[in-house]
Amino acid sequence: MINRGWSLSLLLSLLLVSGCTTLRGTGDLGLVVERATGSVLVVDTTAQRQLARIPGLGDLSHASVVYSRDGRYGIGGAVSQDGRLIAVSNYEPGGVRVFDAVTLELLADIPAEYGTAGQRSKVVGLADAPGQRFVFSLFDAGEIWIADLSEPRDPQLRKYTGIGRQPYDALISPDGRHYLAGLFGEDGLAMLDLWHPDRGVRRVLPDYGKGEQRLPVYKMPHLEGWAMSQDYAFVPGVGQHEVLVIDRASWELVKRIPVHGQPVFVMARPDGRQVWVNFAHPRNDTVQVIDVDNLELVTTLTPGKAVLHMEFTPRGEHVWVSVRDENRLNLYDTDSFRLLKTLPAESPSGIFFTDRAHRIGL
Amino acid sequence: MINRGWSLSLLLSLLLVSGCTTLRGTGDLGLVVERATGSVLVVDTTAQRQLARIPGLGDLSHASVVYSRDGRYGIGGAVSQDGRLIAVSNYEPGGVRVFDAVTLELLADIPAEYGTAGQRSKVVGLADAPGQRFVFSLFDAGEIWIADLSEPRDPQLRKYTGIGRQPYDALISPDGRHYLAGLFGEDGLAMLDLWHPDRGVRRVLPDYGKGEQRLPVYKMPHLEGWAMSQDYAFVPGVGQHEVLVIDRASWELVKRIPVHGQPVFVMARPDGRQVWVNFAHPRNDTVQVIDVDNLELVTTLTPGKAVLHMEFTPRGEHVWVSVRDENRLNLYDTDSFRLLKTLPAESPSGIFFTDRAHRIGL
Repeated sequence: MINRGWSLSLLLSLLLVSGCTTLRGTGDLGLVVERATGSVLVVDTTAQRQLARIPGLGDLSHASVVYSRDGRYGIGGAVSQDGRLIAVSNYEPGGVRVFDAVTLELLADIPAEYGTAGQRSKVVGLADAPGQRFVFSLFDAGEIWIADLSEPRDPQLRKYTGIGRQPYDALISPDGRHYLAGLFGEDGLAMLDLWHPDRGVRRVLPDYGKGEQRLPVYKMPHLEGWAMSQDYAFVPGVGQHEVLVIDRASWELVKRIPVHGQPVFVMARPDGRQVWVNFAHPRNDTVQVIDVDNLELVTTLTPGKAVLHMEFTPRGEHVWVSVRDENRLNLYDTDSFRLLKTLPAESPSGIFFTDRAHRIGL
Repeated sequence: MINRGWSLSLLLSLLLVSGCTTLRGTGDLGLVVERATGSVLVVDTTAQRQLARIPGLGDLSHASVVYSRDGRYGIGGAVSQDGRLIAVSNYEPGGVRVFDAVTLELLADIPAEYGTAGQRSKVVGLADAPGQRFVFSLFDAGEIWIADLSEPRDPQLRKYTGIGRQPYDALISPDGRHYLAGLFGEDGLAMLDLWHPDRGVRRVLPDYGKGEQRLPVYKMPHLEGWAMSQDYAFVPGVGQHEVLVIDRASWELVKRIPVHGQPVFVMARPDGRQVWVNFAHPRNDTVQVIDVDNLELVTTLTPGKAVLHMEFTPRGEHVWVSVRDENRLNLYDTDSFRLLKTLPAESPSGIFFTDRAHRIGL
């Protein structure tokens, strides 16, 4: 589960660790990262309770979890469209390695070499895409690569150079069509339309980041947290107390929505009717909800100190919110915004439910 | 699993019947209906094989399957957004009953009474919607009802009358926003925007069905099979060898795509790049694929006699096709269109994978 070093991501068996002696389905399970203690919780979203705690996992900074296609195993890295491959990216030495999801055998090693001297770049923004592809960005090289793993031992690489300085994170749209990389070294975003790879990488939102640093940037926004709904993408303003609404066809700015703080995660409820936003320190005790229909704020909640992440139940009736400095998870009804329940957790950060197994680009 | 009579839908435990003695996840399982023999197959989409056959289920005509939110149980009817309720509709006496998904206790009985004499209507097109709602149509009454089950023993009904003659089937869009009912008794479709229930039901595609009967209609198209992707809805032409492409914002006709026969199911691959179409008797040996990017046919396949249904694996890399009169399932790669494998099945019809547990409106 740890996205560092060449050691393969941990495989957590949700069924084994949850101490199941009776049969149960895996569609309503999830993992909650407890970063400070190096542990994770296994949770049940139907019973709304903790099933088990797995200690001793070491440094879980920035840990995120994807799932095997049967929903049984939690994994770091990215899982191929057909579930047979696990890809893991690395900072040092930079590259991507691809493993068999069953045997864990190393199938492909893709060093992120660039330039004439063959130096290696940090790899960021690794995502799975339709067509057994993985897409990722080279921070030091300013490149985006597509690796087609249709033949797992013979990856076909397509490299886009000069896409912009220091891509630091990326996301893929929920339909797997658009790959967008944020640029640390300059303004705008690098966008690749995977339906039209021949058109190359183009720059969109050219002013994104530019002149936006009116306030100190407390945290670079997470690009995985961008929301797509109806005709819009909802994007955190960098260093601003704003969510930007972008037209998905033209990639032009439609509206700036003033919000409580600097947005970190900007996440669409599964039905797309609402977008939920959390915020960077020091304004991170609050969550706000935007109505996608009229692009206005609909409510403001104050879950408590250090709201780090949110995860919707698969069909969106509830949202689980990690409130790190209160050592708890808050569970809300997304229709009434009523607090349903709290669950104890040790400094919780990321929350990841097993329905991610069936989503593209997570 | 049978949508007739007041007897509660069968609950099939995929784990028990598949004879699991070892632990396994449920995210990659599915059920295949064998109508002629009154049995279903439990299948594994990772191993691409049959795990078990369940005989003795009686009349499975028009049987469709939804899943409990943990993916463990296959069910007929509809499951509420939060997974706690199962709704079953009935022709005679017409109405909807709602049961507790765990205890199977009857919680609510909603007779489909209409008119001054209190007669009861056949109920069709039952679908779950966000906000713990079920939406359904009254064939004899020409009405659409929304039942809000936030309080399961006290359903709140909202009734739309005069929506058109004889709604015979309906679908809800994948985002749960639009409910569309097909009308047997007149032209056009009845559309309800669930984001704006106060706006009432409006008629869209007013010519749909009108003057379309140039050919005998061999089978009314299944509305559940409509595809939504990018800016379009893909709709089977009634009695015509055409797929209609509709703009989702204006509900205007964009294009008519000539196809091999009268379309039955028109289904989008999960990433929305392709739309797959099967056809009514006597041209039902064929499947065609439309490229959503240019709205052109991309390939024609001939799986064999009587192609009744298709189901995509959760992230869309494969599609399973039931070929009834050849007694088999054909498995295709959706990128190369290569036939990967065939599996024996007794007159297979519907195919339903467990990731439906996490989708809206199925």
